[in-house]
Amino acid sequence: MTPRTALQLQSLVRPTGELVVSLAEVAVPEPGPNEVLVRIEASPLNPSDLGLLFGAADLTQLRATGTAGQPQVTAPVPENGMRAMAARIGEAMPVGNEGAGTVVAAGSSASAQALMGRTVAILGGGMYAQYRCVPVDQCLPLPEGASAADGASAFVNPLTALGMTETMRREGHTALVHTAAASNLGQMLNRICQKDGIALVNIVRRPEQVALLKDMGAEHVCDASTPDFMASLTDALTATGATIAFDAIGGGRVAGQILTCMEAAINRKAKNYSRYGSDVHKQVYVYGSLDMRPTEFVRNFGMTWSMGGWLLTPFLQKIGPVAAQALRQRVAAELTTTFKSHYAREISLSEALDPDVIAEYGRRATGAKFLINPSRG
Amino acid sequence: MTPRTALQLQSLVRPTGELVVSLAEVAVPEPGPNEVLVRIEASPLNPSDLGLLFGAADLTQLRATGTAGQPQVTAPVPENGMRAMAARIGEAMPVGNEGAGTVVAAGSSASAQALMGRTVAILGGGMYAQYRCVPVDQCLPLPEGASAADGASAFVNPLTALGMTETMRREGHTALVHTAAASNLGQMLNRICQKDGIALVNIVRRPEQVALLKDMGAEHVCDASTPDFMASLTDALTATGATIAFDAIGGGRVAGQILTCMEAAINRKAKNYSRYGSDVHKQVYVYGSLDMRPTEFVRNFGMTWSMGGWLLTPFLQKIGPVAAQALRQRVAAELTTTFKSHYAREISLSEALDPDVIAEYGRRATGAKFLINPSRG
Repeated sequence: MTPRTALQLQSLVRPTGELVVSLAEVAVPEPGPNEVLVRIEASPLNPSDLGLLFGAADLTQLRATGTAGQPQVTAPVPENGMRAMAARIGEAMPVGNEGAGTVVAAGSSASAQALMGRTVAILGGGMYAQYRCVPVDQCLPLPEGASAADGASAFVNPLTALGMTETMRREGHTALVHTAAASNLGQMLNRICQKDGIALVNIVRRPEQVALLKDMGAEHVCDASTPDFMASLTDALTATGATIAFDAIGGGRVAGQILTCMEAAINRKAKNYSRYGSDVHKQVYVYGSLDMRPTEFVRNFGMTWSMGGWLLTPFLQKIGPVAAQALRQRVAAELTTTFKSHYAREISLSEALDPDVIAEYGRRATGAKFLINPSRG
Repeated sequence: MTPRTALQLQSLVRPTGELVVSLAEVAVPEPGPNEVLVRIEASPLNPSDLGLLFGAADLTQLRATGTAGQPQVTAPVPENGMRAMAARIGEAMPVGNEGAGTVVAAGSSASAQALMGRTVAILGGGMYAQYRCVPVDQCLPLPEGASAADGASAFVNPLTALGMTETMRREGHTALVHTAAASNLGQMLNRICQKDGIALVNIVRRPEQVALLKDMGAEHVCDASTPDFMASLTDALTATGATIAFDAIGGGRVAGQILTCMEAAINRKAKNYSRYGSDVHKQVYVYGSLDMRPTEFVRNFGMTWSMGGWLLTPFLQKIGPVAAQALRQRVAAELTTTFKSHYAREISLSEALDPDVIAEYGRRATGAKFLINPSRG
């Protein structure tokens, strides 16, 4: 029934300084007793996937280097990018954090057999492939009627959004800031915050995104493209008291601007001047890199601040298996409501290697998430 | 014996956008029962003092605006600087964190009387003044034979240097990095680390500072002004395993370069590639701002990192009074050895308001610390 070999997208950094993305013909594995074989039908192109897919390559110089039957793209990697990717040089890497599809073969165990024919969501990498063999306990069976597309983004964005409000609470903050707030993840976060009664300051980069979030019921939306951005952000921070932010942008000035405006909001209520700034801890977690430029900030927010990386997996490890499972259960229960995703376009594996298509999804533009369907010809 | 009024240096930000530094004639207070009056004879111009003294004013446009008898300097403050200093506008602020001098009057209590005539070091602000009245428990009596200059820097630099090694231990690191490493503080830190057997990576900005620290016995000294800085820093980080840094520079690229080289050093030993970088936590604490430019970094060090402010007073509060007292006792015991300071020049209060002299100490150059002696005419 299932073929002996199938296509898998692979990303390879060559020691000569090029990154090559191609479709490899790989063996379709036989599921072990407690494994299932899933025909992948939907897998999102998340920013974290783009990071592995293209790494530090210069996409402006990307070109097609394969044939119609064997598509392949190549892009040069700048020298400092090669340094950063030293550990992956020469290793063809499968890509795609999460996805969903149909269980087409199952191991001998009862729990594996119970999944035969079911549509399941899975997390674990290598999802940009026609088939993926995974342990049963990595599968989230979707409710009846839910499509693979409905379940394609059941892990990364929902758990990340929940991780933000959970981090906010655990670190003693009472409201939060989010950038690239009109993204799928940003919209989820708005639904979570509205449901849980958490004040949220949304930062977007385009006027139409203000309208989109306001229509969803968001109270505080600040547009970084307007001249009064700093003033409107300071007002929103004063109103909400938010002292923690999650930044998907990374590059440019926005992370620092958030700290500046947090300090200004705090100082509006301050009674005494301190040369070291307020003693209220201000935290920005950078969890993405939608803007690949360097991060730059003016240190005008005192000494009580921190900027740092935030990543889902270590967060889940830190809170422990019981708390992590509670988050997963909430996602499963609210998959088609709070945690609903939407996609700009569905593409096949070979379309994912079309330079024109890459130019689109490689922009990392908010609200333009692509879905790969490896079962499409 | 003591005059009724005396000079105090004050820094004032006017609502019209200028910063004015002048010498005010203020009343000399009568000590309360448990207080002493100290004639200040030595007070260092630390970078943290410069922060209060000149704030965000543009020193390139500073000019003398007083008279020979009443010196005064004025400098414009850029608009964003006014925002940052909003809470101090209109308030004439005394300056000078720490100093030392002779007790010339004492309250009625036995402990106050016991200090009469003694040379003491004190912490508490407003030391750029001819007289300063302080509670007895803020005084550190200097050993016989020690001068006011010997005790002028008995608090800020020594406790900050000890705070660094203490923070390193408490946060689970085993070696550390320090920038502006040829400074008084940096030299103290070298003596502490040599005495305590801690591996220290020194970053300096000039070739002659490499020689200075090597002559002191420093093993790892990296010169940021050389083309092979990143390579030599990565080597030193590989050798020491340092994953925490204290950065006095703040502006420019050095804080980020440290994170980049830490990650590169960690990855030299890594077995597997992770697109999110190593899972070893890399920490840079920015405790100074010798370079006032924006901070800029390329995010090529994975997701497990943090950059943040570090400040002595909150650190001492966090570790609690017992631990803080232990640090103070060590400073007192090793004041003229481990914690010895040296100064480029001693100036009077009116010289401190001479634009040519300000141009020198305002450079915040490592190894050019000035000492104010308010008792000099």
